[in-house]
Amino acid sequence: MAAAEGQWVLMATGRTPTNIAVIKYWGKRDEALILPINDSISVTLDPDHLSATTTVAVSPSFPSDRMWLNGKEISLLGGRFQSCLREIRKRARDFEDKEKGVKIKKEDWDKLHVHIASYNNFPTAAGLASSAAGLACFVFTLGKLMNAKEDYGELSSIARQGSGSACRSIYGGFVKWCMGEKDDGSDSIAVQLADETHWNDLVIIIAVVSSKQKETSSTSGMRDSVETSPLLQYRAQTVVPGRVLKMEEAIKNRDFESFAKLTCADSNQFHAVCLDTSPPIFYMNDTSHRIISLVEKWNHSEGTPQVAYTFDAGPNAVLIAQNRKTAAHLLQKLLYYFPPQDNDLSRCRRIAFHERRRGSSSTSRDEDTGSEIQGRC
Amino acid sequence: MAAAEGQWVLMATGRTPTNIAVIKYWGKRDEALILPINDSISVTLDPDHLSATTTVAVSPSFPSDRMWLNGKEISLLGGRFQSCLREIRKRARDFEDKEKGVKIKKEDWDKLHVHIASYNNFPTAAGLASSAAGLACFVFTLGKLMNAKEDYGELSSIARQGSGSACRSIYGGFVKWCMGEKDDGSDSIAVQLADETHWNDLVIIIAVVSSKQKETSSTSGMRDSVETSPLLQYRAQTVVPGRVLKMEEAIKNRDFESFAKLTCADSNQFHAVCLDTSPPIFYMNDTSHRIISLVEKWNHSEGTPQVAYTFDAGPNAVLIAQNRKTAAHLLQKLLYYFPPQDNDLSRCRRIAFHERRRGSSSTSRDEDTGSEIQGRC
Repeated sequence: MAAAEGQWVLMATGRTPTNIAVIKYWGKRDEALILPINDSISVTLDPDHLSATTTVAVSPSFPSDRMWLNGKEISLLGGRFQSCLREIRKRARDFEDKEKGVKIKKEDWDKLHVHIASYNNFPTAAGLASSAAGLACFVFTLGKLMNAKEDYGELSSIARQGSGSACRSIYGGFVKWCMGEKDDGSDSIAVQLADETHWNDLVIIIAVVSSKQKETSSTSGMRDSVETSPLLQYRAQTVVPGRVLKMEEAIKNRDFESFAKLTCADSNQFHAVCLDTSPPIFYMNDTSHRIISLVEKWNHSEGTPQVAYTFDAGPNAVLIAQNRKTAAHLLQKLLYYFPPQDNDLSRCRRIAFHERRRGSSSTSRDEDTGSEIQGRC
Repeated sequence: MAAAEGQWVLMATGRTPTNIAVIKYWGKRDEALILPINDSISVTLDPDHLSATTTVAVSPSFPSDRMWLNGKEISLLGGRFQSCLREIRKRARDFEDKEKGVKIKKEDWDKLHVHIASYNNFPTAAGLASSAAGLACFVFTLGKLMNAKEDYGELSSIARQGSGSACRSIYGGFVKWCMGEKDDGSDSIAVQLADETHWNDLVIIIAVVSSKQKETSSTSGMRDSVETSPLLQYRAQTVVPGRVLKMEEAIKNRDFESFAKLTCADSNQFHAVCLDTSPPIFYMNDTSHRIISLVEKWNHSEGTPQVAYTFDAGPNAVLIAQNRKTAAHLLQKLLYYFPPQDNDLSRCRRIAFHERRRGSSSTSRDEDTGSEIQGRC
């Protein structure tokens, strides 16, 4: 290390969008390495909307690793953060900033502590994949800072060890997380099925039914399902493989009908498995059910799907419309049936439309494509 | 037929309790004969509480078959009523009332029309098995009136053709509906596992969350599940057979822990299959979920199950307590968390405790054991 110790700080900021699974991940075959029991497929959102922004700083003056999430310090001692830190440090390379007179050899990164500040521009732990965005951003930005080799597959594998679905947020567009077969997890990585330009007339509307933190975390929920649901393994081994193939085909052909049917059916099956868990897990509530009924009735009356719905580990609806016209129609219906300003309605009927976003968007961390990674200072 | 035509009326009244499945029936392999895709097990309630009371009358002066349900005339043209009428008429025997001077030969029953008036003392079509009680009562009382041979297995098979689960209401206590294997359904009958005295410290509390008629009838719901749920056949073929054996064992040994765990798990799995149906079927609502959470937390904190819950095709909770003491404790908890008088609570949180009943009760239609079948007039 050059420059007097404590005299300098290196910093990088990244922004990573969340992703929404259309074929769901639920259940691990290895808790420590976060290896799933089935493949999953997701669409990455536009980073302008639901995303995590993370700044990572390193300095010889930092006596320990520390992290702040949404302004509040959280522990970095958990195995997940430690795995990501360790894996990125392993891949760190020589770095030099001549202007600042800072030179770090790859073996010296181990001696430097990091400070991490992350911020989600949407509700945290409310079933909107905040941890996917957060961990992917953490890994990506740390990799940038430490000058790690940029192999996206490898980065996705590291992000996976932070939060399973984070591996899918490394790419924009449509992404498949291949479960892999190896015990060491080295083949459990994400791959991009189609980039963000492939099917860009889709519009995604997120209806935030509740921004409360969920009662059952995804981690403990899926552990309980693996241990107690008689239906889960059948789903993973027999139902999902066929659905993954059909979903890949639907995405390739921009076949909205198949895409919508598969998306809705897989969301419902994931929640069915939650209900088949002991004790049962309820992520959806009456308002979620009403949104589903609204969409189902509309799709039925039109004879062909107009909108797909999917719910992650929370009551909030992710609605995917075929195009802007359908999205406008959908919004109209939602606002009619769930008026946000109607205080007479009981709490379970209120709904807020938190964000409106265009689907299949890009990550914006890559310096070559309009990156948000800021210069080192 | 003796006596001048139109001069006489023969009448019989019966009362049949509803039954609550602890291993659920969901899915038919034959729609017309009502043959199920798996065995099911139920407990028959005390007829003093949730029951159907049916009066059947026959007279040469009746020009056609007619039926009234809860005071409102309904059509008897449906295949289900017709099947039951046809099957009982087939089994009718010679009858004579010397006092009235009425004599009917078995072949003459075919020429006589019936009037049927049925009344449920609990919400109809709200997922409390009203059709089970109603159809069983219809078959039983008609059989009495027409002097049909009283083979309970055969009566259960006729009631089955009216409403599948009605076959289980023919007996008191714990009852198993054997799915059978034959194409003609002749081996798809109910058998009594244990009579109403076997485990009579159980107490059943029914928490009526809503007495509204359900949106999706059981008939169309299970048809949709059979056609669209990838999980249903796996449940029927792989999960249920093992559960049926364990449940029979639990009932035999009055093993409440096993009984409660199986009951809750099977209720949840049935609703999971409903959710896995396309479009998904939601019978439970937020209040149902809150009741489940209350019971699960209580059972967990005690280390051993105090209460089992089960939900049929509706939001209403059937809660089975191990004994009177536990039942009192349960009622106390329910009344605390769901105060019936609190009008400030939103509709989805209100709950009424409609009935309190002792479990595993007898049917009361058998003339040998204090029957409610009234004399012919």
